[in-house]
Formats: sequence, C-alpha cells, structure tokens
Amino acid sequence: MRIVIPLFQGFTALDVVGPYEVLRMLPEAQVVFTAPEAGPVRDGVGVLALSATATPAEVDSCDVLVVPGGPGARTMMRDEAFTAWIRRLHDGTTWTTSVCTGSLILGGAGLLEGLRATTHWGAVETLEAFGATYTPERVVVQGKIVTAAGVSSGIDMALTLFERIAGRTAAEAAQLAIEYDPQPPFDAGSPAKAPHEAMELLLARRR
Amino acid sequence: MRIVIPLFQGFTALDVVGPYEVLRMLPEAQVVFTAPEAGPVRDGVGVLALSATATPAEVDSCDVLVVPGGPGARTMMRDEAFTAWIRRLHDGTTWTTSVCTGSLILGGAGLLEGLRATTHWGAVETLEAFGATYTPERVVVQGKIVTAAGVSSGIDMALTLFERIAGRTAAEAAQLAIEYDPQPPFDAGSPAKAPHEAMELLLARRR
Repeated sequence: MRIVIPLFQGFTALDVVGPYEVLRMLPEAQVVFTAPEAGPVRDGVGVLALSATATPAEVDSCDVLVVPGGPGARTMMRDEAFTAWIRRLHDGTTWTTSVCTGSLILGGAGLLEGLRATTHWGAVETLEAFGATYTPERVVVQGKIVTAAGVSSGIDMALTLFERIAGRTAAEAAQLAIEYDPQPPFDAGSPAKAPHEAMELLLARRR
Repeated sequence: MRIVIPLFQGFTALDVVGPYEVLRMLPEAQVVFTAPEAGPVRDGVGVLALSATATPAEVDSCDVLVVPGGPGARTMMRDEAFTAWIRRLHDGTTWTTSVCTGSLILGGAGLLEGLRATTHWGAVETLEAFGATYTPERVVVQGKIVTAAGVSSGIDMALTLFERIAGRTAAEAAQLAIEYDPQPPFDAGSPAKAPHEAMELLLARRR
C-alpha cells in the first residue's frame, strides 16, 4: 500500500498532515513524500518545513496519491513536468485524491474535465476553469478520484477513503486512534455558516 | 506574539500541525519550532520529518507554548533538562498548552499538580500519576494552562485559544480560512462513542 504525497514550495501543512495521520494506519502503509530535491520543503507560510523522502523521478507508481493544496498550488497547476508526472501516477493508482487547492493541480493535469469536484471555497472559479463542476460538499467521490474541500477536510476525506480500502471497523479504529471527535467552539467553518464580519475580516487580510 | 512548539523524536505530526495552522494566523504571530539540534526531526511513525528552526538554548521566553504529544512524549516527560526548560518558559507565558500526550510533559514539568487536565484517552493513568485530575473534555482550561485531548483536538484547542487572544470574529475567520466544518463519516472518535469492535482492533494492534 504505497501512498505518495507530493510536497512543493508553498504547500499547506495541514493539507498534508491531516490525511497522513489517518492513511499511515492503513495495513502495510508505506508513505512517500516527494519533492524535486529530497530534504526540507517550506510551506506557504514559509515557517514550517516537511522533509521529502524521494524525488518524482524515483516514484513511478503508487496505490494512493494525495495532492495537497496551498498558495504554491497555483504555480504547480501550470508546471507541465509536474502535472505530467501526476497524470502518469494517476494512470496506475487505485485512488487519486486532493485536499484544498490540490484539486487545481488535478485540474491542471487534465483529470477533472467533466467531473464533479470540490476545493477550498476561495478557489471555485479556478477549479471550474479546468472543466470541473464545483460541488460544495466536504468530500466528493467520482470514480477513483476523491477531492476534499479546504485544508482541514483532508481528515474527513482520508477516513472516507480508509473505509473503502480497509472496511468500516478499521476506519473507525483510525478515527479513535486520533481521537477525532471534533468540537469546534464556533460554527464558522464554511462561507454558508460564517458570520459576515468573519468573512469580511478574512477577505480584507487577503487583499 | 511568539509561539513556541517543541519538536522531539517521536512527536505526532498532527498534534503540531493542527494548532500551527490556526495559531499562525494570530496577529503578528512568529512561530518557532525547537529541537536539540536545528533541522529535521522525525515523528513517531519514523516517516515524516518537520524542521526545527531553533534550539531550546536560543529560546528563553514566549507568549504561547504548545507542547505536542506522541510516542516520544513518554521519554521527554522524564527528561530533566527538557522539563526544566518547559518550566522556565511557562513562567513567562501568557498561555501554556498541550495536545494529546503533550500533557504528560507538562505533568513531568510539575505544572499539572492539583489541576484538571485532559490527554489522549490511552494515557489517563500516566496523566493522573502527575497529580492531575483527568477530565474527559475536548479542551480543558485551568488558568493559563490549556490541555487538549488526543491528536486532532489540537485544532479545537487552538480555536478556543485564538478567541481568548484575538476575539471571536478573528477566531471565526481563522476557522473559515481552514474550512473547519468537520464532517467525520463515522461517530467513533472517542472511547464512549466507538463501537466495541473498533476499540478491540486498535488495542490488538498496539499489543
């Protein structure tokens, strides 16, 4: 069970680590983090670095592909060598998945044409430019392609995938292991639920 | 707003990255990851490495301390130099926090004596050996000490803290930014909720 998670300059760390902490518990899981050069790769904030353990040239197949998002995804979605590699991996995967704006990279690889898919709520137009139909659900399964909404949704996506691969009880055991019994103190986790003031504050910061 | 997150061999990555992705959005946040030597530090699975940006000797104060857990926490809770440093930092913090078995390190530093606290459900006895009273809540606030339950609870803890530091609207904006609208596909995230078979499977694997 080889799981490949590509890292790139400007990824979002929780997009990577949420699914990782779940999928690493799959039977005989072997997780590989790739980057053009092995070693630390900085996230979108520029503070945290995760280490790549292999280069794309060393990885030509996998069972599960997890493509994270982040500010860097908008560069990577146009990187022809990278998207060609994603496409080659996808040919042999059992599951091809994305978290947050990782779906833009799947889109750039031409994998979402005509499919329903999700992404971070702030990236809907870009996703649709790749021929996908944005679907405002937490996890969208289309054949072997599974896209997840923004950042934290990767945990829900990974548990959904875990059940399909290893069955319900094993997936529940994984949920219990990470004590995933979420109790957010507010109910502002989507544009439909967040107070107007919170959205305004966030958009003002991004301007 | 200096936020210090100590890394150590055998930490759990989601304990670190969950709070990081929230607290990095605090006004003027500066996040520092420490380890005895700067550079990559391997997690409890031995696969993922996060990079430390400073050594403890270089960090003698912070506003917010976030102590992660993981298999390595049971070694670190007995490391006198490390727990003495945690204690020194705690003297000057505004908030001292832990995720998962990070609370055992706070316990080893003598900070939980006589307090209510939480931890991963599998570490209750060890927590209580440090004089704390285990409280099966997601986030437990006792003065300036905030402990969180297992692994994924660090996200809820960080949002709780965010509100206290920066106010409700800013905290809601942080929740919206990471699209934290959790929808776990099962309801097995705590021992009270998980089916018996899931708990048995998990315990069998750990034996």
